[in-house]
Amino acid sequence: MIDSPELLKIVTNNQTKIIMVVIDGLGGLRDPKTGKSELEAAYLPNLDLLAQDSACGLSIPVSVGVTPGSGPGHLALFGYDPLKYLIGRGALEALGVDGVDFIDGDIVARGNFCTVDKSGILIDRRAKRISSDFASALCERLNTVKIDSVDIAVYPVKEHRFVLRIRGQNLSAELSESDPQKIDVCINEVKPLAANSENTAVIVNEFVRKAHELLAEEETANMILLRGFSGMPSLPSMGEAYKLKPVAIAGYPMYRGLASIMGMQVINTGSTFDNQLDSLKANYNTNDFFFLHYKAADTAGEDGNFLEKIQALEYLDTYISKLRSLEPDVLMIVGDHSTPAIMAGHSWHPVPFALESKWTQSNGVKAFDEYHCSRGTVGTFFAKNIMALALAHAGRLVKFGA
Amino acid sequence: MIDSPELLKIVTNNQTKIIMVVIDGLGGLRDPKTGKSELEAAYLPNLDLLAQDSACGLSIPVSVGVTPGSGPGHLALFGYDPLKYLIGRGALEALGVDGVDFIDGDIVARGNFCTVDKSGILIDRRAKRISSDFASALCERLNTVKIDSVDIAVYPVKEHRFVLRIRGQNLSAELSESDPQKIDVCINEVKPLAANSENTAVIVNEFVRKAHELLAEEETANMILLRGFSGMPSLPSMGEAYKLKPVAIAGYPMYRGLASIMGMQVINTGSTFDNQLDSLKANYNTNDFFFLHYKAADTAGEDGNFLEKIQALEYLDTYISKLRSLEPDVLMIVGDHSTPAIMAGHSWHPVPFALESKWTQSNGVKAFDEYHCSRGTVGTFFAKNIMALALAHAGRLVKFGA
Repeated sequence: MIDSPELLKIVTNNQTKIIMVVIDGLGGLRDPKTGKSELEAAYLPNLDLLAQDSACGLSIPVSVGVTPGSGPGHLALFGYDPLKYLIGRGALEALGVDGVDFIDGDIVARGNFCTVDKSGILIDRRAKRISSDFASALCERLNTVKIDSVDIAVYPVKEHRFVLRIRGQNLSAELSESDPQKIDVCINEVKPLAANSENTAVIVNEFVRKAHELLAEEETANMILLRGFSGMPSLPSMGEAYKLKPVAIAGYPMYRGLASIMGMQVINTGSTFDNQLDSLKANYNTNDFFFLHYKAADTAGEDGNFLEKIQALEYLDTYISKLRSLEPDVLMIVGDHSTPAIMAGHSWHPVPFALESKWTQSNGVKAFDEYHCSRGTVGTFFAKNIMALALAHAGRLVKFGA
Repeated sequence: MIDSPELLKIVTNNQTKIIMVVIDGLGGLRDPKTGKSELEAAYLPNLDLLAQDSACGLSIPVSVGVTPGSGPGHLALFGYDPLKYLIGRGALEALGVDGVDFIDGDIVARGNFCTVDKSGILIDRRAKRISSDFASALCERLNTVKIDSVDIAVYPVKEHRFVLRIRGQNLSAELSESDPQKIDVCINEVKPLAANSENTAVIVNEFVRKAHELLAEEETANMILLRGFSGMPSLPSMGEAYKLKPVAIAGYPMYRGLASIMGMQVINTGSTFDNQLDSLKANYNTNDFFFLHYKAADTAGEDGNFLEKIQALEYLDTYISKLRSLEPDVLMIVGDHSTPAIMAGHSWHPVPFALESKWTQSNGVKAFDEYHCSRGTVGTFFAKNIMALALAHAGRLVKFGA
């Protein structure tokens, strides 16, 4: 709803509190062997109880049939149409690495160490997936590159991947990629895609040339590839748009970064859900919207580990009564997308949704799973409408029209 | 669908008849004490029977989470996207008062009698809610105001509220409001918000000045406030768009007014549902679309009177078999929005929907209430699509594409 001036006009402020628990990769699919999805197979007494009192449904993250990455999946949950608000891949990568110094005006890109032959032909786009330790050492070497007028930083990510950050005046991310996305060809020169990006293209190409000099003696990682050039995304602030004081309580850097660009205050928190709950309590009085991110379900799903995903869900379930005991005006259990263990990856399937409040139109949904949520009163709907539901149930939307 | 040229192209005319019964404020919420909503608690044998043979669902009036006023709630039922077709508050007020002479080209506004102190500071926005009788006398006094080149009329509404109507050449409603919406401040001068509204602003400010002169000796109602300036809304005619001869059979002026601006013929009818049924029968042969408006459920809901809302629903239920005995090709029971008695006001919750016809995909929904309708074949859907469903089931939409 963040791009609807008509709807933002009816937002009002009050003293209510909204908790949104995002279970990353929440939705799943039935294992053909047992006929049960992860949610159906898990023992979730607290989530099931919550579902009975909740308005339930299934949320479509981006568009029917569309499998979202983490960026679009999360944007939708906070009312940003993910087909309209696009976050560059470089920015998402930079936001996802702890400690990347990335501010407005910078340009970032995803980098690979790669292998070229003597004539410069690309023969391995991932340099045999060199170890993370070795890549860190190479990044330190690249950090010695000096180019007039800009400040350059290179951050290791994992194995052959790194983030390049360039800081300076009048930079533009409107650049073609150096990564040809296939082997046995030359690496592309980076070209300006807009009039004001010519200077940035010169800088990037100079960096690539100097990097190659510094890596030339290496056996495999003797060159770099760059793609996904992007600046800091500029999004409307959800705090301002919805008249909220939102905080993000997330353990993983990418979600903290995403929350930050949506205008949320990002809380320093530990890596367990216990830590996150403590952070929630510590900030409960001074704020009114709380985004709690729970990663373990997605991780297990991505690994194709059905049992581990069940356990991740069961672990989260033990926290539900603690969340309810805070008596927020609105408590929502949502997911950014499905990650069915049998697919070992994100998927497009609609995601179970539950919203509890004093004004909930509940219909006794018997269990919090894909099957039962599909019969809830909210129906199958778009995730970008979740914030409007939250605000409405919190009494934060006045009547539209007379 | 009225703004989709592609869909309007497939509308065809035939001899079928469509009855739409709008139960104002139809949807409700469960009373925490009993666990039942108004519809669940009411004895509705005829509506329940109808639901079994109907395509049932829940309709979202405007947008997920959005609580509609009466205007947007009704526009959606007739296929007008209420986020696109906006009706000014002044126009809705004017349409809602019997006998207001309001035509295309006029400007109307909502007025309050109010109280100012000697230095012009607003001290009571509602003039102690003076009686309707006294306000009528004051309106007569204001009707003596003469301003060159325009014709002015003031109509009492209820207590301190009135409607101002200005008729003349080249008027524009693009005006700021004189009502500051708070006390202890001066009343605002009305300012033009567009180049062509300067003249209208001069006229309105002169009216305010002259009204103050006429009211100056009053103890409380010694001044007026104006807001919601609007002209006559201009909407596409639903009769033309859908190739129908639609009639509105409604007891309350506002719904008659709304029907009129949608291009429906408005039938003079009495104030009971018996009268409305008689009017339906009298006009049945010569028309093909019938909008029957039933107000009592909303009134009881707004009053927070759970029992009275049950009774209002039970009363309407006794008419269902009479409506079915007319054997319309399509009979629909719909609501413009929910008005849960426990909220004592309009709400955003999806509204029960039932459509009976020869071509209905029914699934034996056991009762006409929020819970059972959520499991109907139509699912949870947007009210602006109801007209397309009606036309389709009446055989009035031909195949789209080859």
